[in-house]
Amino acid sequence: MPETVSDIGEFGLISRIHDVLQREGVQNPSVTLGIGDDTASIKPRQGFELLVTCDSLVEARHFLPDHIGPLDLGRRAMVVNLSDIGAMGGHPLYALVSLGLKKDMPVADVEDMYRGFLKELNPFKASIIGGNITSTEQSIFIDITIIGEVEPGHLMLRSTARAGDLILVTGYPGRAAAGLRLLVSSEPEDIREHPLVRAYTTPSHRVREGQAVARSGFATAMIDTSDGFLGDLGHICQGSGVGAELIQEKLPISDDLKLAAERLKLDPYELVLQDSDDYELIITCSPDSIDEIRSVIAETSDVLVTKVGKITDEAGAIRLILPDGTHRLVTPSGWDHFVE
Amino acid sequence: MPETVSDIGEFGLISRIHDVLQREGVQNPSVTLGIGDDTASIKPRQGFELLVTCDSLVEARHFLPDHIGPLDLGRRAMVVNLSDIGAMGGHPLYALVSLGLKKDMPVADVEDMYRGFLKELNPFKASIIGGNITSTEQSIFIDITIIGEVEPGHLMLRSTARAGDLILVTGYPGRAAAGLRLLVSSEPEDIREHPLVRAYTTPSHRVREGQAVARSGFATAMIDTSDGFLGDLGHICQGSGVGAELIQEKLPISDDLKLAAERLKLDPYELVLQDSDDYELIITCSPDSIDEIRSVIAETSDVLVTKVGKITDEAGAIRLILPDGTHRLVTPSGWDHFVE
Repeated sequence: MPETVSDIGEFGLISRIHDVLQREGVQNPSVTLGIGDDTASIKPRQGFELLVTCDSLVEARHFLPDHIGPLDLGRRAMVVNLSDIGAMGGHPLYALVSLGLKKDMPVADVEDMYRGFLKELNPFKASIIGGNITSTEQSIFIDITIIGEVEPGHLMLRSTARAGDLILVTGYPGRAAAGLRLLVSSEPEDIREHPLVRAYTTPSHRVREGQAVARSGFATAMIDTSDGFLGDLGHICQGSGVGAELIQEKLPISDDLKLAAERLKLDPYELVLQDSDDYELIITCSPDSIDEIRSVIAETSDVLVTKVGKITDEAGAIRLILPDGTHRLVTPSGWDHFVE
Repeated sequence: MPETVSDIGEFGLISRIHDVLQREGVQNPSVTLGIGDDTASIKPRQGFELLVTCDSLVEARHFLPDHIGPLDLGRRAMVVNLSDIGAMGGHPLYALVSLGLKKDMPVADVEDMYRGFLKELNPFKASIIGGNITSTEQSIFIDITIIGEVEPGHLMLRSTARAGDLILVTGYPGRAAAGLRLLVSSEPEDIREHPLVRAYTTPSHRVREGQAVARSGFATAMIDTSDGFLGDLGHICQGSGVGAELIQEKLPISDDLKLAAERLKLDPYELVLQDSDDYELIITCSPDSIDEIRSVIAETSDVLVTKVGKITDEAGAIRLILPDGTHRLVTPSGWDHFVE
């Protein structure tokens, strides 16, 4: 029988987590008081604004333990939050992790989950400065708060797109969603290493790309695709009081997504537009600035940047231009936690 | 049928919460970007340190919906977190609220929960700047992150008590715990307005007292009693490498607690020492400073401040001196989420 959290108790578990953080985490000199007191204490950098965001993953709702191991679950939970900081142009600094765990959960799994958190935080020299652990009867939850910083004037918003702007997207949205669908429709062992499944279990974030775009000053608005491509383009349209026109054949569809869509008997465009398990960036910019945007991103990574359409003045309307030149209004089916 | 969260969906619910915050909350000018984008953005006050803490309440584990209404639940969840900021000597500024809600929860209950949050935040001109809402199948959870600030040099720690210091406690620890025990052993309707039950459903925090003590510079260590009086005195002893001697007859026991202990057939001292539903302060100070501590607290509120013992150099040992002069070693049975 593996050692469980109820074997060592709350304070035993905290001490084990503390050991993992000491050994494998980054110590940040701006943290004047870390884990172990009632609060953490930090010294903000003068002149910088702080960004704060939180997001949670709930078992059965956001993940199935059979489909994702504790290390990847930790990575994924952290990526979801890092992505929000990056989409605003910020740099991640600190995380607080609040867990609801079941009593019979192996301690080694909790330690692996923290290793997953650190795997995503360490490259930013960001550290876990606090949190909370409680027990829960049925569904475990992971709620993470991240604090980041941004230089004044470089905060990227969703509400500042303008009619005439181009719409760019990084990477291949929809790949992670396709991976999840493959995962639930197959035996997990057979498919764990499929590239789309890996895109789901260990998704990319675009924090460095987001920071580079923000710093360049060439983008007008930015958001991550956490509510699905259309969902988040919809947030830009609503926030900015604009509309959008997307050219269907320009939407980036990877070869593996095309194959998976065939296997799953799904429209690949639906996967790209509607599903929400990737953390890519939607960027809007003036047509004059597209080369600069591509160039600052290229200095950061080799992620694909695709021009997929433009912002219009038809407030709230997103039109999809089909190959035959006709168009249809599309609405995000989006991701609503309270609607089936 | 009351309107439920699944009737209006996640984004409908967020918009309703936004309305409550706009109408009934405080707008804080240091918040450069509030709810509605991927992250909030704040401008920290120059020279101040920021305190960050998070704590969660889980249905069935920390509260029973039959025993506490949504407004009081919101208040209680916020007090738990405010108390941590106050125990460090800080001033609360911002909160992020992450909720796991059931689909059939009435929207009016969620709005009332937010009114509860605001009831505790507004007196500090603190505001809710972000959060997250997800659905959960069985147990709802409320996870709150609070950010506060403290002037440099005024951060109060648990790790700085010294042998020879006096141990002070505010209020009457154990009253809320007794209230909870009354509540679960009675028909809720019959007992809702009992002062001990009120102490449980709407507990006090000592944030202003904590700030005043910290600012005075007269205390050597401070902590709130969120893990029970003995549990938190134990944290001071462990953190400071000291021991403690408590004089049983000095422990403050209110008349209503005495009566309730009789009714519940419990030792009132056990309620004071072991249970953990109050948010009082344990303060240590040099014997020379007790009058100053009493006086700065008296300027803030009329809460009782009782000298209950002293810090010793017997690392880790907490001794309870009984009325006959004998003593026994006591250990916190504490509150461990993973042990029954």
